[in-house]
Amino acid sequence: MDNDQVTLLGFWASPVAMRVRIALAEKGVKFEYKEQSMRNKSALLLEMNPVHKKIPVLIHNGKPICESLVIVQYIDEMWKQSPLLPSDPYERTRSMFWADFVDQKIYDMKRNMMWKTRGDEQEAAKKDFIDSLKLLEVELGDKPYFGGETLGYVDVALVPFYCWFHAYETIANFSIEARCPKLIGWCKRCMQKESVSKSLADPHKIYSYAMKLRKIYRLSDQSLGFVDVANVSMEAKCPKLIGWRKRCMQKESVQASCRPPQDLQLCDEVEEDTSAFRASMMFPV
Amino acid sequence: MDNDQVTLLGFWASPVAMRVRIALAEKGVKFEYKEQSMRNKSALLLEMNPVHKKIPVLIHNGKPICESLVIVQYIDEMWKQSPLLPSDPYERTRSMFWADFVDQKIYDMKRNMMWKTRGDEQEAAKKDFIDSLKLLEVELGDKPYFGGETLGYVDVALVPFYCWFHAYETIANFSIEARCPKLIGWCKRCMQKESVSKSLADPHKIYSYAMKLRKIYRLSDQSLGFVDVANVSMEAKCPKLIGWRKRCMQKESVQASCRPPQDLQLCDEVEEDTSAFRASMMFPV
Repeated sequence: MDNDQVTLLGFWASPVAMRVRIALAEKGVKFEYKEQSMRNKSALLLEMNPVHKKIPVLIHNGKPICESLVIVQYIDEMWKQSPLLPSDPYERTRSMFWADFVDQKIYDMKRNMMWKTRGDEQEAAKKDFIDSLKLLEVELGDKPYFGGETLGYVDVALVPFYCWFHAYETIANFSIEARCPKLIGWCKRCMQKESVSKSLADPHKIYSYAMKLRKIYRLSDQSLGFVDVANVSMEAKCPKLIGWRKRCMQKESVQASCRPPQDLQLCDEVEEDTSAFRASMMFPV
Repeated sequence: MDNDQVTLLGFWASPVAMRVRIALAEKGVKFEYKEQSMRNKSALLLEMNPVHKKIPVLIHNGKPICESLVIVQYIDEMWKQSPLLPSDPYERTRSMFWADFVDQKIYDMKRNMMWKTRGDEQEAAKKDFIDSLKLLEVELGDKPYFGGETLGYVDVALVPFYCWFHAYETIANFSIEARCPKLIGWCKRCMQKESVSKSLADPHKIYSYAMKLRKIYRLSDQSLGFVDVANVSMEAKCPKLIGWRKRCMQKESVQASCRPPQDLQLCDEVEEDTSAFRASMMFPV
């Protein structure tokens, strides 16, 4: 497989793209990395993932594979060394079940923690998040890794979220380590592996990025400066509301207090999350 | 494998439970079927799927496997006859990608079609649904089945939704066959197989069930008779609103027009969809 051409289309802060980096590193597969912008999607991304138009995409000898967990399974089948999934069918399904759990609970929670930043909703999001991590702690048990003695499929699926924990904790004001010490112990164990530590982003950079995203979400609530974000024409949908907004903006008191729309630079992750973002715009808390 | 004990926990109208029935039938595996109520979850269901508490669950010699696509993969690995997934790793990932697409687009759309029953939102849901089916038609191409000459993994993932089409078409007033004739041709081809025809529910029964669900959703919008549905205590959350509701209900004009709460029998699928249902209650259109 020495002549393999392997390319990864990713985005630096995306935990699902980090999964693919870790899997490739565990297998010792050399690959070319191409950073993508979610705002201006490249012709290559649109060609390789015309259905979802999302990263990550792995291109293996010209053929695209999409969806992070599918990609990790593919890598595990193509490069047999350091297997990630167990060979026993029942144990394989257990791994697939828990990786799917991470997608359903931890990945979605990331979005909730960004948006639901006030009062009861934030508390509910935190509780759901901790409850999910606690279930994962039970599944980990006394094993060093979810995969047993070595890093496995569930480890690869979950560990990228570790570099987002600092942002969650700071923004939502809680300590994950205090609630889930075993899980954090596992995170630190994973980080001792170069395949993991070199694939995860810097938590401080993630925090700055999360703050930028959060500012956009909150500004969109507060200033009605959301007209062009997420490609929604609010004017077409709600002409009276936008008429009112324009009248308000002519008042100096409003002008001085609201950020103008051009200040709202669309962050790269926003488009990925458009539907939830739209929901948050329609029903500001 | 003649001594295998195979039990399926399902719900008659659930397309994801039908997937498991079809896969077992294709493999010729005998199994015991146990119908579940989503309202009063059985001790067996809670024991076998303590994480999600959802059907379908396959119990194989006492060991539970959860999540329909994971179950179908497990069945395909355990009983090798009539393989559902291709043996080539790249083709396998293509199948997994499209099955996941069905989960993301067609399964979620079912919910949208139930709730978004008016105006622009309904039109948008219909358009998304047809667009997704058209992408599936392209993937099908000129093959008799997604699996090629024989029924495969994507066929098993998608075909159960066929018995819901009549309900969608009648409720949302459109013809799927007029828009996607090739796909309907494929549905009819699948229905010629006993493994499929015996696993799918009667479309007319599904329609009655869908109407019952829809009535509950719409009533919840219109009558504020939703207090006990989905185990949400609206009174605890919104005491003033419920106080106002009680005052209104004392007026004969309101009493005569609103259905009393006890009329709102919680349908079996409601609890499964609680979060979206809650959202629809919080923000009635």
